[in-house]
Amino acid sequence: MFDLIGFDADDTLWENEYLFYNAQKRLGEILKNYSEKPNDVLLQVEKQNLSNYGYGIKGFILSLIETSLKLSKGKIENRYIEEFLDLGKEMLSEPVKIIDGVESTLKSLSHNHNLILITKGDLLNQEKKIKNSNLSQYFNFIEIVSEKNEQVYLNILGKYNFNPSKFLMVGNSLNSDILPVLKIGGMGLYIPHELTWDHEKVDKISNILDYVELESIFQIIPWLQENYNKK
Amino acid sequence: MFDLIGFDADDTLWENEYLFYNAQKRLGEILKNYSEKPNDVLLQVEKQNLSNYGYGIKGFILSLIETSLKLSKGKIENRYIEEFLDLGKEMLSEPVKIIDGVESTLKSLSHNHNLILITKGDLLNQEKKIKNSNLSQYFNFIEIVSEKNEQVYLNILGKYNFNPSKFLMVGNSLNSDILPVLKIGGMGLYIPHELTWDHEKVDKISNILDYVELESIFQIIPWLQENYNKK
Repeated sequence: MFDLIGFDADDTLWENEYLFYNAQKRLGEILKNYSEKPNDVLLQVEKQNLSNYGYGIKGFILSLIETSLKLSKGKIENRYIEEFLDLGKEMLSEPVKIIDGVESTLKSLSHNHNLILITKGDLLNQEKKIKNSNLSQYFNFIEIVSEKNEQVYLNILGKYNFNPSKFLMVGNSLNSDILPVLKIGGMGLYIPHELTWDHEKVDKISNILDYVELESIFQIIPWLQENYNKK
Repeated sequence: MFDLIGFDADDTLWENEYLFYNAQKRLGEILKNYSEKPNDVLLQVEKQNLSNYGYGIKGFILSLIETSLKLSKGKIENRYIEEFLDLGKEMLSEPVKIIDGVESTLKSLSHNHNLILITKGDLLNQEKKIKNSNLSQYFNFIEIVSEKNEQVYLNILGKYNFNPSKFLMVGNSLNSDILPVLKIGGMGLYIPHELTWDHEKVDKISNILDYVELESIFQIIPWLQENYNKK
């Protein structure tokens, strides 16, 4: 059995990537006269800006503006920059769309497990989504972090006094939710989402590291019962 | 005596507002043909955006771009928008300038007091400044929050099990560091900074609420000795 089960939030508990996907589609339309693949350049700009901006919508919009200036060689019309600013505000105030099966699964798990939510991104935006989702009632702990790597997971587990070997992390990003947890000796349940940011993708997981892939959050409880209740 | 002493970070432990001040000066130069007081409009735009952007440099740059588009009626040249983006990156990567007297005061206080750092702004940017300042060694607790109000202070004190009446908060913002702490029954040490964002200013403090104003952080230890060691 696990002493602590962690959940990623964006695209694990609620929809998120679709907002970025729609914004990128719009960038493609606006820049079609300047570039065939503006989103390849956007990804490159985003990666370059990560150490300054971190994750989240505000940095994304700044990178979107930078990409449009870069690809248009400074010729993009101001009305499009205004549109990007408006788009950012819409993204930041978009109502939370909880993924099917999340609430019933968390409710059920919370009866006999310690649950922690671990999410990265803009602090205020994550706080708002957590509040509006009404899901915080199921979590013992909530952590909003700027990065999800081995050290961050170790710090969180140390803070609440849990052993990594008794920690299960559930999420849609191999790079942020699964790999670092496996590396510190925890277990990962990978639930892919149809939309995943390229930056979060991992080419190949080392054979040594073993994780489980499920199709949807509905399968978590059956999986736990099958694998851990008999022991 | 106090069980816990809290410190604000920006413009209390290290310089911060000068970065915004310089950016606003540049906005004034760029927009001088469009507006006499662009920074009044900027403040208005920033306040409108606060519920979406929260505090910090990324939201400030987005508001700067919005203000320049608004005041120029969409006529601002793209090279200035590029300049604002560059300015934001410079602000985000600017080395931390610790204020005189901070390190010696924290070091001395940490020997016989619990210290907490409570700061608001962009998560990643605050984490970087805390790390680069090398001051975290003096703090028992560090909290990066999206807002500093009564409820946030009560939540933090509750989390670490401290009584508000035994809490002293030190900071340069009456609005964020002093008033909410006084209102929950704590004590506030107000150390004004020559540069303070208009949004943090308070016209008048109610007579009922009593706080102490010091000229510099060098006076904290003498003030504590004079007022609390004799009791």
